[in-house]
Amino acid sequence: MTTIAPMSDADVPAEARAVFDDIRQTRGTDFINNFWRVLAFDPPLLKATWEEVKTVMGGPGALDPLTREMIYIAVSAANACSYCAHSHTASARAKGMTEAQYADILRIVALAARTNHLANALQVPVDPEFDAGQKD
Amino acid sequence: MTTIAPMSDADVPAEARAVFDDIRQTRGTDFINNFWRVLAFDPPLLKATWEEVKTVMGGPGALDPLTREMIYIAVSAANACSYCAHSHTASARAKGMTEAQYADILRIVALAARTNHLANALQVPVDPEFDAGQKD
Amino acid sequence: MTTIAPMSDADVPAEARAVFDDIRQTRGTDFINNFWRVLAFDPPLLKATWEEVKTVMGGPGALDPLTREMIYIAVSAANACSYCAHSHTASARAKGMTEAQYADILRIVALAARTNHLANALQVPVDPEFDAGQKD
Amino acid sequence: MTTIAPMSDADVPAEARAVFDDIRQTRGTDFINNFWRVLAFDPPLLKATWEEVKTVMGGPGALDPLTREMIYIAVSAANACSYCAHSHTASARAKGMTEAQYADILRIVALAARTNHLANALQVPVDPEFDAGQKD
Amino acid sequence: MTTIAPMSDADVPAEARAVFDDIRQTRGTDFINNFWRVLAFDPPLLKATWEEVKTVMGGPGALDPLTREMIYIAVSAANACSYCAHSHTASARAKGMTEAQYADILRIVALAARTNHLANALQVPVDPEFDAGQKD
Amino acid sequence: MTTIAPMSDADVPAEARAVFDDIRQTRGTDFINNFWRVLAFDPPLLKATWEEVKTVMGGPGALDPLTREMIYIAVSAANACSYCAHSHTASARAKGMTEAQYADILRIVALAARTNHLANALQVPVDPEFDAGQKD
Repeated sequence: MTTIAPMSDADVPAEARAVFDDIRQTRGTDFINNFWRVLAFDPPLLKATWEEVKTVMGGPGALDPLTREMIYIAVSAANACSYCAHSHTASARAKGMTEAQYADILRIVALAARTNHLANALQVPVDPEFDAGQKD
Repeated sequence: MTTIAPMSDADVPAEARAVFDDIRQTRGTDFINNFWRVLAFDPPLLKATWEEVKTVMGGPGALDPLTREMIYIAVSAANACSYCAHSHTASARAKGMTEAQYADILRIVALAARTNHLANALQVPVDPEFDAGQKD
Repeated sequence: MTTIAPMSDADVPAEARAVFDDIRQTRGTDFINNFWRVLAFDPPLLKATWEEVKTVMGGPGALDPLTREMIYIAVSAANACSYCAHSHTASARAKGMTEAQYADILRIVALAARTNHLANALQVPVDPEFDAGQKD
Repeated sequence: MTTIAPMSDADVPAEARAVFDDIRQTRGTDFINNFWRVLAFDPPLLKATWEEVKTVMGGPGALDPLTREMIYIAVSAANACSYCAHSHTASARAKGMTEAQYADILRIVALAARTNHLANALQVPVDPEFDAGQKD
Repeated sequence: MTTIAPMSDADVPAEARAVFDDIRQTRGTDFINNFWRVLAFDPPLLKATWEEVKTVMGGPGALDPLTREMIYIAVSAANACSYCAHSHTASARAKGMTEAQYADILRIVALAARTNHLANALQVPVDPEFDAGQKD
Repeated sequence: MTTIAPMSDADVPAEARAVFDDIRQTRGTDFINNFWRVLAFDPPLLKATWEEVKTVMGGPGALDPLTREMIYIAVSAANACSYCAHSHTASARAKGMTEAQYADILRIVALAARTNHLANALQVPVDPEFDAGQKD
């Protein structure tokens, strides 16, 4: 089920094909996953999304690429994104994530979910010690 | 505003005081933040939550303590937990998080939020390549 | 998979059948989608939900019917509702939504997700200029 | 801070005043909390929301009034609604919720949050044994 | 689709097998659902999660076991956890939940979702009457 | 409370000042709200976020600017973003949103929240009629 049919290589418009080419070249694989094949229905949206992924996940930065994927998995779990949980767990494994690291991510996601819900239920007042800036 | 008043040291029952003592000793500071002072209304809940935090965030594992905090921040943002965003950003800084690392976390959280919402709107079919196990 | 089996026309109780009749007449189609066939297990819940849908989405109002559906899609994406993303994207198309409009909705949903997560991570203090009412 | 100023009794239009009167009579108190004072800017929205609250939370049903409030608290925590966590914890206490019951709710909310995030991260396939209806 | 293959009894390591044994004995059934078969990839995570479920859902407490399951269903719906909605609706039915009780839960979840979203959109200021503790 | 102090004009680095200048020129006002003053701690993040806001909310498109803001409000409510609910309700009003339109948005957000939660609780199977593409 989907709201937009994933497009085959034969069907994508030229502007989307150029993005597919860049995905293939950047990743060193011929495989294009459905997320991009669906976004191809609107080439500017495809292009903007891919360029952000390429820069944020693969460009220079203060965090190594695997740590970036692990943070991505955590957010995707919290946002209940089935597709993203699948695709970014696969990406993290491709970048070397071990099962022990995966289990640790899950432990932290589970713990954070627990305390997030407790603090949101209890409406715990933020300690002034945590304020990094001006008073509200 | 809060649904349970944070308890001062003078007011906490003995079972909660023992947890406060362990928090102080583990962290090497006299400061007890409001999350624990609120949970102190139910000592078993306080104790179970603290022991999970102590083990998952500070015990042995496949991820270093700062990476753990960064994942925690990401989940807390996705779950809209005001208290946790404040407390775990402070914790991550105490463990050495630089402003450049914080900005990178934010970039990944923002990107994941973007693609999570796109995939959830479009209901992109999961590629069979991402399936690690049995068919549904 | 479902927690309640969708009911066929033959199986629905009389009170639910009257709602089905109203859905068919209002929409000008014989098709009843699974959401209503599942809710039919509790006719008062079915009836109250349908009447709210009928009034809010089809009754008089300050927004045109297509704009209403576009807002519905956006909320459904944010709430990770697979069924609703499918059903309301179909409804919006039936009311004339173009692919260009759909792409624009996705762009806004993606951007809002991005800034929502950034503001929730950073806990940006609300500017007094945005306060429409009394001080807290 | 608010996006709509709560309205005082002197300012509410007649249609909203009638709802305020019904709230007061139903609850047996003169106090009208801000949620209703804000919704009063649109009397039909105020009236529809209040009537649903009155029926669902106070009308006849299969669950006792306190159990209803406890479920409400749980949903409000999961949805990160600060206002609702405050108002429904107060309501539950007014209906007799003990601190031990509140702690039990928190334990369940915390556990559900934990397993919800784990199952959403792991994308655990639903067991056929849990399917109550037709196959997808 | 899954990110970790559910493990058969033949494949689980000894530490996980002991947890499976306890699940079977506690529940009085040979059936082990996929959630545990997936978590078995990391026995300590499996064990910690099961022990929390066993204690919180089945141990002594201020709420009866069915009420606990009903709260669990409500949180799972709000967190968009497909697996958990299925598994805990099944558990609640096994503990005696009637269709009338299920419909009531749904009515409350739907109402809470409604007012949660309204209060979060309107940013209704919390009434001082709801504050149970110290001022922020 | 905040995790990063909003920066005054005097403190922002040159790269961020250029973004502030563009915000002022684009909006025709000297006012810079806190979201940008906080993001200024990382000029590339500030710049990328502002350019996306400028393009998506103010550039050419298939939806008029007010409709875009209304969709933004809806997503922000669903994501429980206090800051964004305030800032985008103010933006929508600046673009001409009437109180009647605002009330209609709220009605749709409330209804979508209701049916999103119902469908997520009931796990209603998606009708094949809603599938726009290939089978899963």
